[in-house]
Amino acid sequence: MVTEALTVLIWNEYIHETRDENVIRIYPDGMHHTIGAALTRLLPGVNVRTATLPEPEHGLTEEALAGTDVLLWWGHAAHDAVEDTVVERVKQHVLGGMGLIVLHSGHWSKVFTSLLGTTATLQWRSAGDRELVWTIAPSHPIAEGVPNPIVIAEQEMYGEPFDIPVPEEIVFISSFSGGEVFRSGVTFTRGRGRIFYFSPGDQDYPVYHHPDVQRVIANAARWASPRSRERRVPSLRGPVAPVV
Amino acid sequence: MVTEALTVLIWNEYIHETRDENVIRIYPDGMHHTIGAALTRLLPGVNVRTATLPEPEHGLTEEALAGTDVLLWWGHAAHDAVEDTVVERVKQHVLGGMGLIVLHSGHWSKVFTSLLGTTATLQWRSAGDRELVWTIAPSHPIAEGVPNPIVIAEQEMYGEPFDIPVPEEIVFISSFSGGEVFRSGVTFTRGRGRIFYFSPGDQDYPVYHHPDVQRVIANAARWASPRSRERRVPSLRGPVAPVV
Amino acid sequence: MVTEALTVLIWNEYIHETRDENVIRIYPDGMHHTIGAALTRLLPGVNVRTATLPEPEHGLTEEALAGTDVLLWWGHAAHDAVEDTVVERVKQHVLGGMGLIVLHSGHWSKVFTSLLGTTATLQWRSAGDRELVWTIAPSHPIAEGVPNPIVIAEQEMYGEPFDIPVPEEIVFISSFSGGEVFRSGVTFTRGRGRIFYFSPGDQDYPVYHHPDVQRVIANAARWASPRSRERRVPSLRGPVAPVV
Amino acid sequence: MVTEALTVLIWNEYIHETRDENVIRIYPDGMHHTIGAALTRLLPGVNVRTATLPEPEHGLTEEALAGTDVLLWWGHAAHDAVEDTVVERVKQHVLGGMGLIVLHSGHWSKVFTSLLGTTATLQWRSAGDRELVWTIAPSHPIAEGVPNPIVIAEQEMYGEPFDIPVPEEIVFISSFSGGEVFRSGVTFTRGRGRIFYFSPGDQDYPVYHHPDVQRVIANAARWASPRSRERRVPSLRGPVAPVV
Repeated sequence: MVTEALTVLIWNEYIHETRDENVIRIYPDGMHHTIGAALTRLLPGVNVRTATLPEPEHGLTEEALAGTDVLLWWGHAAHDAVEDTVVERVKQHVLGGMGLIVLHSGHWSKVFTSLLGTTATLQWRSAGDRELVWTIAPSHPIAEGVPNPIVIAEQEMYGEPFDIPVPEEIVFISSFSGGEVFRSGVTFTRGRGRIFYFSPGDQDYPVYHHPDVQRVIANAARWASPRSRERRVPSLRGPVAPVV
Repeated sequence: MVTEALTVLIWNEYIHETRDENVIRIYPDGMHHTIGAALTRLLPGVNVRTATLPEPEHGLTEEALAGTDVLLWWGHAAHDAVEDTVVERVKQHVLGGMGLIVLHSGHWSKVFTSLLGTTATLQWRSAGDRELVWTIAPSHPIAEGVPNPIVIAEQEMYGEPFDIPVPEEIVFISSFSGGEVFRSGVTFTRGRGRIFYFSPGDQDYPVYHHPDVQRVIANAARWASPRSRERRVPSLRGPVAPVV
Repeated sequence: MVTEALTVLIWNEYIHETRDENVIRIYPDGMHHTIGAALTRLLPGVNVRTATLPEPEHGLTEEALAGTDVLLWWGHAAHDAVEDTVVERVKQHVLGGMGLIVLHSGHWSKVFTSLLGTTATLQWRSAGDRELVWTIAPSHPIAEGVPNPIVIAEQEMYGEPFDIPVPEEIVFISSFSGGEVFRSGVTFTRGRGRIFYFSPGDQDYPVYHHPDVQRVIANAARWASPRSRERRVPSLRGPVAPVV
Repeated sequence: MVTEALTVLIWNEYIHETRDENVIRIYPDGMHHTIGAALTRLLPGVNVRTATLPEPEHGLTEEALAGTDVLLWWGHAAHDAVEDTVVERVKQHVLGGMGLIVLHSGHWSKVFTSLLGTTATLQWRSAGDRELVWTIAPSHPIAEGVPNPIVIAEQEMYGEPFDIPVPEEIVFISSFSGGEVFRSGVTFTRGRGRIFYFSPGDQDYPVYHHPDVQRVIANAARWASPRSRERRVPSLRGPVAPVV
C-alpha cells in the first residue's frame, strides 16, 4: 500500500503556450498548471509535480519517475523531440507499475505508441465541433460524478477509425457535431502499469478548464495509481523448479 | 463442416406490417421477406426460411430449429406473447451452436435478454434522426464491403447507455443527429453459439432496403454460422478420471 | 460514496453442514460463519451478516438486500429449492449495483446462470486433487497479497471447458494434480453490479480455512462494493429530446 | 477477397538445427520444413515459402512480405541478430493486414514484443514436462478438429505469469506436469493484422511432428489470413470535412 500521498507528475511539452497567442490566452501558465491546480483541488492530499520538454532529460529523470505514482502526458508539436532513452525509461516505469494517463494529442507520442504497438492514428478536424462525451461503463470509477453526456462546447474533432488495440475497457464514447464518433476514454494494462487514454483537450480550446473534464482526469489519477511504489518490471524466470 | 447450404431462418413477429399503414407501404410482404430476398441475392446458395409469431409454436418447432444454422430475430410489439417454452428452446439451440442475429427492437426480446443476463434497455427517440454507422473493427468479417460510415438517412435513435454485458467485439458504433452514440453492432458467444446484435432497422423507416444494411446482415449470417449442425449444449461431466 | 461500513451478506444453503459428518467436522457452525469470521478479521469495520435457505424468503428479503453492499453465494445440494421470486429479487439488486461473489458450486445456482445466460457447466472430480491457483492479472486488486500460486493441498477438481461467457477479467487460473485447468477467478459486470466467481471451496475440504483463500474473498468483497447503496436498475428511457 | 491461394511464409532463425545434435535428429531439414510439409498436407492449395536468418535481409524483403498472407515466426537463439529495419518492415506489414503466427520462443522476438508493447516474459523449465493443451473457446475456428486436451508427451514448460496485454481471445490454456499453467493460444489484432501466439514447440522435443499441433497451426493460418492482399497501414487523416 502506498502510505504516502498520491504523487502525480504532469508532463507537458509546453510549446504552444509559449508561442501561440490564442493558447497563451487560454493557458497563460501552461496546460500542466491548469490541470495541476484542478488535481490539487479535487484530490485532497495529492502531491502534484510538473515537467516539460526543455528541462534536462525533459524533467523525466530516473529519480523523478521513481517518485511518481501516475504520469500524465500531453504532447503535440514535438513528439519527435522526445529522446528515445527517456521514452524507454518511461516505458520501463509503466511496465513496472507506474500509472499513465495520456491526454489528447499524446495519442501520437512515442511513449503511447510503443506501449500499444499500433499507429494510434485517427481522423481529425479543428473546426469548433461540439463534443458529447457519453459514459458507456456507468459503474466504472473513472466515470464517477460526471454527467452523461459531458458537453464540451467547442473542441477539435478526433474520429474513428482510431488505430489502437482493442481496449480492456471503454469508459467513454464521444460524438461530434460533424457526425463522427470516437472511443474517447479507454483503458489498457501493460506489465503492471495501468494506462488511461482520454481524448478531450486540444490546446486551442479551454477544455482543461471544464469541471467535468477535470473530474475525469482526477478520477483516472486515482484509478491508475499503483498499490505500491516499488517498480517490478516483469522478467524471464528460469529454470524454475516444479511446484511441490 | 456444414456440407449443405447455409440455412437461415428469419423470425419476425409480423405485427406492424399487418396493421400500420406506413409500415405496410414500406414492407408490403413483411420485413422478413425483404431481408430474405436480400440474403438470397447476397449469399449464393443460401437457404432462406421464415417464421412468424402467429404460426403454431411461432414457427419455431424443434424440427425447424434443428434444421437452422442461423436464426434472425425481429420483434417489438409482442415480446411478451412469445411463449416461454419456445424461448427456452431457442436458447438451447443457441447454446448448442446455432447462430443468432438479433435485430433492432429485438434487443428487448426474451430470447436476447435471457442470453445476456441484463435488461438490454437503452434510450430512444423516433424522430427521423440520421444515423451514421461507423466501423470500429476494420478487419472484422462482418464489416467487409461496407462504407465507413454507413449513412442511414432516417432512423429511430437508439442511444447509450445500452445495458448489455461488455461485448466480446464492437464492430460498429453509431452516431445520431441528436448527438447520441450507440454500440450498434456487437458480438457475444453463449455456449457454442455466436450472437450478433445489429441495431439499425426500425419498422417506420425503410432501413432493411438499404444495401449496406443488407450487406452487414449477410456478412453476419456467414460469421454466425456454426461449423457443424450437430447441437451440443455444454453439460456437466463427472466424475472424470485424471488425464494419464 | 458509501459512508457507512461495507456490509457483506453471506448466503449459504447450509445443508451439508447439518447432515454430513465430515463437513460438520470441518465447518461446525457452517461455512458462512467461517467465511464471516475471516472477513471480520481482514476487513476492519466490515459489517457481516448471514442468511440461509431455511429462513423465510431464504433470508433474502427486500430489506436484507437493500442493506447489502456485497452478497456472497454458496449453494450446492439445493439449487432448485431457491424460490424463483427470490432469484429474481437478487438479480434486480445486482443489476442495480449490489456486488455479487459466487463461490465454488454456486456456479450452477439460478442466480448465477440467469445473470450469465449460459449453463455454467464444467467437468469435476472429487478425489483430493491438489489445486494451484495462479495469478494471471498481477496488478488486479483481487490478487493483492496472495502468493503465486496459492497452494490448496486437497480440493475438488473443477475443469475446463467451463461454459461461461468470455469473462471481462481473468484474475486466476488453476491447475489440478490430474492435469486439468480452470478459470478459477473471473469477473463480470451485469447492469451496475460487479460479479466475481471464485471456484476454490468444496464442502468436503477445509478450503475456507485457508488464509490465502480468505484473503481473495476479502479482496473481492472490497472490489465488488458499489460506490453508493442506491440501487438503480437500468431502464428504458424515451422518447428523449436531442441534446442541445 | 484473396483469389489466389493462401501464401504462408515460414520464418525460422534456423540455428539449433545446424549445430545441436539432438535438434538435427528431430528436424534434419529445419523446423520450417517440418511445419511447411504439414501445412501443405492440411491446407489444400496453400503456397508455402520459407525464409531464414542467414539470408539477405533474413529473407524478409519487401517483395517477400508483399506476397505473403500469413507469416510464421520461430526464433530463439538470435533474437538480437534480427535487423531493426527488418523488424520494422514486418511490423508495417502486420499493421497493414498481413497475418502473423508467433511460435514458442518467438514470444521474445523483437517483432512480437514491439507489436505487444510488453516484455512477453514468462517462467520456464526444460525438463520434459508433459503439456496438456486445453481448449477454452470450443467454437473458435483455431480449435477445430483437435482433441480436448491435446496431449504433448514431452515439452519445455512455459508458465504464468506471461507478461502480455490482455488477449482478445484465449483459445487454449495449458497445464504442465510441474503444476504450472500457461495461456498457450491467444489472439491479438494490431492495425489490420491478426496475430496468433501458440506456445507448444521447443526445438528439443518433436512437437512440430505432433498431428494436433500441426492442425492448430493450419487452422491459425486460415484464421489469420487477410481478406485482401492489399496492405493498408492505418494513417492520420485530416482535416476531414463533416459528414453531410
